[in-house]
Amino acid sequence: MNINTLRYPDVRDMPREQLSGLASDVRKMIIDTVSENGGHLGSSLGAVELCIALLRKFDPREDKIVFDVGHQAYAYKILTDRAERFGTLRREGGLCGFPRRGESEFDHFSVGHSSTSISAALGLAKARDILGQKHHVVAFIGDGALINGLALEALNHLKEAKTRLIIVLNDNKLSISPRVGGFATMLARLSANTSYNSIKQAVKDCLSEGKGKGAALRKGLEGIHAQIKALVKPANMFDDLDINYWGPFDGHNVDEAEMIFELARSYSRPVLLHFITVKGKGMPEAEANPTKYHQMAARGGAQPAARTWSEAASALTEGLACDDGRIVCLTAAMATGVKLEGFRERFPSRFFDVGIAESHMLTLAAGMAAGGLRPWVFIYSTFLQRAMDQLAHDVALQNLPVVLMIDRAGLVGADGETHQGLLDVSWTRPIPNLEIYSPADEASLADMMNHAATRDGPTIIRYPRGPIMGSVSPIRSIATTKIMDGEGAALVGHGTTIGILLEARKMAERMGITPTPPAVFDLRRLKPLDVKALYEGNYDTIVVAEENYLLGGVGEQIASGARHGASVKRVGVPDVFVGCASTERQREMFGLTAGNVAEMLRVSRHS
Amino acid sequence: MNINTLRYPDVRDMPREQLSGLASDVRKMIIDTVSENGGHLGSSLGAVELCIALLRKFDPREDKIVFDVGHQAYAYKILTDRAERFGTLRREGGLCGFPRRGESEFDHFSVGHSSTSISAALGLAKARDILGQKHHVVAFIGDGALINGLALEALNHLKEAKTRLIIVLNDNKLSISPRVGGFATMLARLSANTSYNSIKQAVKDCLSEGKGKGAALRKGLEGIHAQIKALVKPANMFDDLDINYWGPFDGHNVDEAEMIFELARSYSRPVLLHFITVKGKGMPEAEANPTKYHQMAARGGAQPAARTWSEAASALTEGLACDDGRIVCLTAAMATGVKLEGFRERFPSRFFDVGIAESHMLTLAAGMAAGGLRPWVFIYSTFLQRAMDQLAHDVALQNLPVVLMIDRAGLVGADGETHQGLLDVSWTRPIPNLEIYSPADEASLADMMNHAATRDGPTIIRYPRGPIMGSVSPIRSIATTKIMDGEGAALVGHGTTIGILLEARKMAERMGITPTPPAVFDLRRLKPLDVKALYEGNYDTIVVAEENYLLGGVGEQIASGARHGASVKRVGVPDVFVGCASTERQREMFGLTAGNVAEMLRVSRHS
Repeated sequence: MNINTLRYPDVRDMPREQLSGLASDVRKMIIDTVSENGGHLGSSLGAVELCIALLRKFDPREDKIVFDVGHQAYAYKILTDRAERFGTLRREGGLCGFPRRGESEFDHFSVGHSSTSISAALGLAKARDILGQKHHVVAFIGDGALINGLALEALNHLKEAKTRLIIVLNDNKLSISPRVGGFATMLARLSANTSYNSIKQAVKDCLSEGKGKGAALRKGLEGIHAQIKALVKPANMFDDLDINYWGPFDGHNVDEAEMIFELARSYSRPVLLHFITVKGKGMPEAEANPTKYHQMAARGGAQPAARTWSEAASALTEGLACDDGRIVCLTAAMATGVKLEGFRERFPSRFFDVGIAESHMLTLAAGMAAGGLRPWVFIYSTFLQRAMDQLAHDVALQNLPVVLMIDRAGLVGADGETHQGLLDVSWTRPIPNLEIYSPADEASLADMMNHAATRDGPTIIRYPRGPIMGSVSPIRSIATTKIMDGEGAALVGHGTTIGILLEARKMAERMGITPTPPAVFDLRRLKPLDVKALYEGNYDTIVVAEENYLLGGVGEQIASGARHGASVKRVGVPDVFVGCASTERQREMFGLTAGNVAEMLRVSRHS
Repeated sequence: MNINTLRYPDVRDMPREQLSGLASDVRKMIIDTVSENGGHLGSSLGAVELCIALLRKFDPREDKIVFDVGHQAYAYKILTDRAERFGTLRREGGLCGFPRRGESEFDHFSVGHSSTSISAALGLAKARDILGQKHHVVAFIGDGALINGLALEALNHLKEAKTRLIIVLNDNKLSISPRVGGFATMLARLSANTSYNSIKQAVKDCLSEGKGKGAALRKGLEGIHAQIKALVKPANMFDDLDINYWGPFDGHNVDEAEMIFELARSYSRPVLLHFITVKGKGMPEAEANPTKYHQMAARGGAQPAARTWSEAASALTEGLACDDGRIVCLTAAMATGVKLEGFRERFPSRFFDVGIAESHMLTLAAGMAAGGLRPWVFIYSTFLQRAMDQLAHDVALQNLPVVLMIDRAGLVGADGETHQGLLDVSWTRPIPNLEIYSPADEASLADMMNHAATRDGPTIIRYPRGPIMGSVSPIRSIATTKIMDGEGAALVGHGTTIGILLEARKMAERMGITPTPPAVFDLRRLKPLDVKALYEGNYDTIVVAEENYLLGGVGEQIASGARHGASVKRVGVPDVFVGCASTERQREMFGLTAGNVAEMLRVSRHS
């Protein structure tokens, strides 16, 4: 068997005795590729057998299998005609790290953020009903994703929707970090339920005793339904929500999973199938340290020489927290990503990981601030999108001293279009009471954090993914600062673009593009924006560079207020979703390079 | 007893036999004021006894009572020193319709949107613990609010947070509209539980038999805890989440409520107290028709002569749905507000009220669209803030044909700062793949809806609260249209501001402010924005008027692209939260008036 030449429905038609070999081959391919390209390792390894069983019991062209987050979908990709291209995972022009409509006829719903699968599957199921179709719809969700409000709203709505839908709960007890809260406890209780063995035996008997066809099968299955219901009812929240719960089952036993899927296919109402799996299965070091192996960086990119923005932000927070006992830190299942492990160890009672629950995190922080604490919320730019109302309605409206440390702001590289941090400036800028900062070097980051620590109102500090480049200016100020003198033209930016502008200035000088070198302004504070000095500089040409969408970006604000006669040119991310590629390539695509900025100075000023 | 002169702690010290009279007086005040000023009637009437009991068992200065949504807080306001001013409810400079920090020392958390109370209370409780304080924290939440993802995330987190917190669940079985989903079913099952009578008796015995002090009381209570736990455990989801559930109790019996609160005060873990109340209690017509009496318009404003935007949008949708069986409508507990009752009656199987679950609604719609339907989502601008990531990540990224009908866009008047629709333009504009429309009259609305009905991608149509004014132009186009010729100056707007601009043009002409009358442009389509004709008109002065925040508004985009030498002035909502007042007054405050726009033309063009 050559895994590279597998085509669907090969996995369906494969003899049962070859399946464990197939699972090994798939695992090897995942480990090899992720070690090289980076990506999500643990969840993918844990879901191999479930993906095989799904593809044997459902037709992935007709039936809609919807993955949650998509961390778990690598085996599915490999087994649906994408093995040969799997080496291009997370590379420019290659396979996306998550399911993506348009990438393949087997991907029915694009995803990247957590907890969308039940809502999406419910929508697909209702569409099927209304359009008179018959196929199956399967949502494949991890336990960590289940506690997000979006998934919980969908669970609540299931009963009402009165439709046929299969939810596969892939419970590896961990999600990204060790899971949080009451749901986790309940799942653990369910996992410890030993009654399921008798159910499994009944299913096995039913299927093997030649009852496997037509009416006899259905009759046998109905008896089993009743048996399952009776067994699991007493201690089960899902039953309270009128969701049929079956489980728990062994998610690494393809035979067992196939039996359960067969049973679920014939069921006419929503059913939740609870499978227990091991995160990182088949790779001992990943099984032993699942948080570390949740996501891996691409080879070569794993150990940046300089310290990262996340590391600096975290270290500075620890320092502030030593001096102010009111400082607490919050994160939503991202303690490792935002480098808060040190804080957690040092101040365990002042550290809160709420699980994948961004909305709750922001309102919780607002409550803490209203109660006299100074909460620091660490969140990726892309996930802040999940908590915008809580930011506006709970934090900003009450002008509470919550600090938002927005990590991964701007272009993020290989994680692709779902994970770009390109909206935070446009979305936060119109919210009253906020102050918004974007540091270009560590000294600025420290100054901004010191300011935030004592400000009597909400403060946002956004910083990019990756290492901090060297100091861009010795001038210490948290407001807009002219870091290089110049005449005629001015280059304006914030955060990552400052390095580009300084380089562009050198190029302009070297290549004689401008008679004298342009001035460079580091905005630093995006709100309230004070660009009086820029306007008063009487520059003929102003180039604003930002790593954010141009629409709603700070460049629009600067251009809209500029004096008559000044030509304001803007470079940033145009009105498109930005797919996988290195951040360097992404910057090139959009002209966020020193060369392009220098050329913008050359173009006739009144063109 | 004169209710107007009541001061806290009068309600606490009042003899028990006066309490039913007090409840009647409070109800009368609520009914009188809401009939005059508008506001939320049903929920407020239902919560009177619970508010009285809370104020007798907790100290509202020290203890933090956090109301959810705030519909239910009128009695609380009246009884905490605000009776005399209660007639100013929802008026400019008067009492806010919701709890508001800053309005009173008794309001500990500002609110307006649903389902924030448990997160906020948890934050306040953790702040208390960390700061070494001792007071109680109480979250007061309605059953409808409980099914929102935010509240569910908080419920999940409760166990982890290991703190002392009292959740009062005011279950009127209705929330805004008849409630939706599995949680509702579960609460109904709990309500039917007859075992609670024995608990109540035990509590009563304990409190009345002179055990009401110190250790004896505690001992008695502990016995009762065990008894409660044993009785309600088997069928209870809250228990699955490790939340202590006590109930159900009669929420209109002050004595009973006081007993339960006394019991809860001594408990050291989170406890959820389930009270059954009647929405609209004490006002027979409201009890009989709770959805209608949920919210009332101010006297005089109740019956607009012209038909409203909501009515027109709904009627047009019905017409489209007749022709296209793929069209389905979705709303989040707002069927009455957005006027979808007709659609619901006519197409029951194509109508979805998901309850207060905006995030789920958007991803559900994305799933439906991916499955071949054409979902139309009706949502208030302010509540869309709850589903921004779902709009970007699930709808727009996949370029799915979901239509978003954004009602109450712009200034909303008396609902105040939590309910303004001032962010939707700034927040949606940077999202790729969206088209965004803002009609000024019904003909435009119809044209835009016809376009949206066949567009192969996501479309937003935003329209304001209130009646549609007459036709503003006979020119049918959904793109930017010059609806009045002119020279030298141009007035540009969309939606509600078009009427203002046309009036301003007349004033400018009448008063000779400009040598010739200015041109008027109706933008209609805000994205993709095409203002080539405007730029090519070589106007010296351009005034852009919009009912949205200026920051991130379409005016910034227009100004940032204007040719050299053109003076672009912008009028819109400045960088503040906008409190209660009539929309007319709000527009005046921000210069969104014909007079001000005309004056803006007068000002020296190059100032």
